[in-house]
Amino acid sequence: MKLEYEVLKFIRKYNMYEEGDRVLLGVSGGRDSMAMMDILFKLKDNLNISLGVAHFNHSLRNTADEEERFVEKECRKRSLPFYSKKMDVKTYAMTNKLGIEEAARKLRYEFFNEILEAKKYNKIAIAHYSKDLSETVIYRLTKGTGIFGIAGVLPIYKNVTRPILSLNFENLEKYVTINNVKYVIDESNYDTKYARNKIRHEILPKLYEINEKYENAILRFAEITWEYRNFLNIIYKERVQIENNVHKLKLNNDFLDKEILRMIFLNLNELPPSKKEVEKILSMKSKGKRKINNILLEKEKNMLYISKEVKSLGGK
Amino acid sequence: MKLEYEVLKFIRKYNMYEEGDRVLLGVSGGRDSMAMMDILFKLKDNLNISLGVAHFNHSLRNTADEEERFVEKECRKRSLPFYSKKMDVKTYAMTNKLGIEEAARKLRYEFFNEILEAKKYNKIAIAHYSKDLSETVIYRLTKGTGIFGIAGVLPIYKNVTRPILSLNFENLEKYVTINNVKYVIDESNYDTKYARNKIRHEILPKLYEINEKYENAILRFAEITWEYRNFLNIIYKERVQIENNVHKLKLNNDFLDKEILRMIFLNLNELPPSKKEVEKILSMKSKGKRKINNILLEKEKNMLYISKEVKSLGGK
Repeated sequence: MKLEYEVLKFIRKYNMYEEGDRVLLGVSGGRDSMAMMDILFKLKDNLNISLGVAHFNHSLRNTADEEERFVEKECRKRSLPFYSKKMDVKTYAMTNKLGIEEAARKLRYEFFNEILEAKKYNKIAIAHYSKDLSETVIYRLTKGTGIFGIAGVLPIYKNVTRPILSLNFENLEKYVTINNVKYVIDESNYDTKYARNKIRHEILPKLYEINEKYENAILRFAEITWEYRNFLNIIYKERVQIENNVHKLKLNNDFLDKEILRMIFLNLNELPPSKKEVEKILSMKSKGKRKINNILLEKEKNMLYISKEVKSLGGK
Repeated sequence: MKLEYEVLKFIRKYNMYEEGDRVLLGVSGGRDSMAMMDILFKLKDNLNISLGVAHFNHSLRNTADEEERFVEKECRKRSLPFYSKKMDVKTYAMTNKLGIEEAARKLRYEFFNEILEAKKYNKIAIAHYSKDLSETVIYRLTKGTGIFGIAGVLPIYKNVTRPILSLNFENLEKYVTINNVKYVIDESNYDTKYARNKIRHEILPKLYEINEKYENAILRFAEITWEYRNFLNIIYKERVQIENNVHKLKLNNDFLDKEILRMIFLNLNELPPSKKEVEKILSMKSKGKRKINNILLEKEKNMLYISKEVKSLGGK
């Protein structure tokens, strides 16, 4: 099967796009994003979606402007709308005391959202593929995660989509070679993400030595965790009600109580509590109260009430 | 807190032992098993259990007999019953066309079970600690697994217990040093498990560089997956009935159908089907039939009937 049809199947499986969607592609000009652009360009009529390309010029490499012109030219060839923005990420990072990578990510997404708004796109497409997924799974395992968290790189989450997430390194290499897709080498050597670089360059090659298809193995694992997340979302709707900004969780005294509690924290834009803390919350007696950071928890019989403390308006 | 109390807490948390249990410790004489023996010896009165020690002499190292005498002496010091058996694992492996490690494992467990039976022990204790757990998690992820499978190294499974599973490398080192626990160096260089050696010696040290507490992080992740397994066991009992050797699964059209189906295969001593195969089985129409290896599956409305083909008695 041609690779583009594998991508189409993956897009369909996760209902990534609906007819009429306007999808903004984040394209750096590197192999992964150029492959994504080429594949989606071939699939757009079939999917009945329209595409635009956003390139964020980080001003981090000497070749940054050249790369911008390269992406622009490739868009022109395909008559795709091209949007770009140039910012001095280094200075921004220093001024705001952020890591380079963190600053780059923040500014890039701000730019994508500006274009989304201004040009009426409704979805973003990011060129993560299965090696990126493997990297994140190993990273989270090492730093600490749960079943919900290990599934964190999703095919679709809010308006961000990852259409080529199921492709592996070999697929991608083959695709760009056979289809003569041009790209720039954009390995981010300014990357300060020490841990992720170590995983990518030192650990993943060893997983490959153990199993040449490790990316597929981890992808299948991830797919099971995504299904698990969907299942939790259904349970969430059954057990959680929101009234006056208070989340009411009906406790069932099963494992899912814990998972749902973690999800409520995430929905309140808070990090989920530790495993130990979750156990403490759920083992509270009726009328019990706890506070974690600025989240208030109160138990009343088999109901748990979770709310976020409202910051005083006088404060900063 | 003294380390032995951490182990006690872990044993209690997972109801590993009941009062009166007779626990047979698998002791090679290496650091991990000697630490386990020393810790359980201190805890046995508190737990009200009795202990015995089984040492399997693999005849694989020149020092094998010396190691056996060492373990025997350490048992005598503590007045613990000592059982040993010597076998030529190498010859056995060659005769039976098995890998050395596989043959060793098989013979060792056979020996443990002989002693269990003959001397009326009811549980086995194995000295796996959290690095062994990390190794297995990475190994399974790389080779392919699901949420159920990634939780596979359990504190208690049937009659096998792992009382020191929550300890990490640092804990163990500290314990044997402070308590002057003697042990032999038994790093298995004859180990043919190429992949596991690579993980242990090349990958885990890199996870340590990323997070010195990675063993604890993976342990916490594993604990969540164990709870998930317990949850599935409850659902299993709710949805599965066995009649005349046929497993009847009541389908609920949710994610858990898939997990329960995998568990039924495991209970029939078969490898669970692939993700794709599971999807095919569950999407069968009523009256649909499938056969996978020697497992028959039939669907009738929302019931799935799963049975193992009975081998003809005339066959081999």
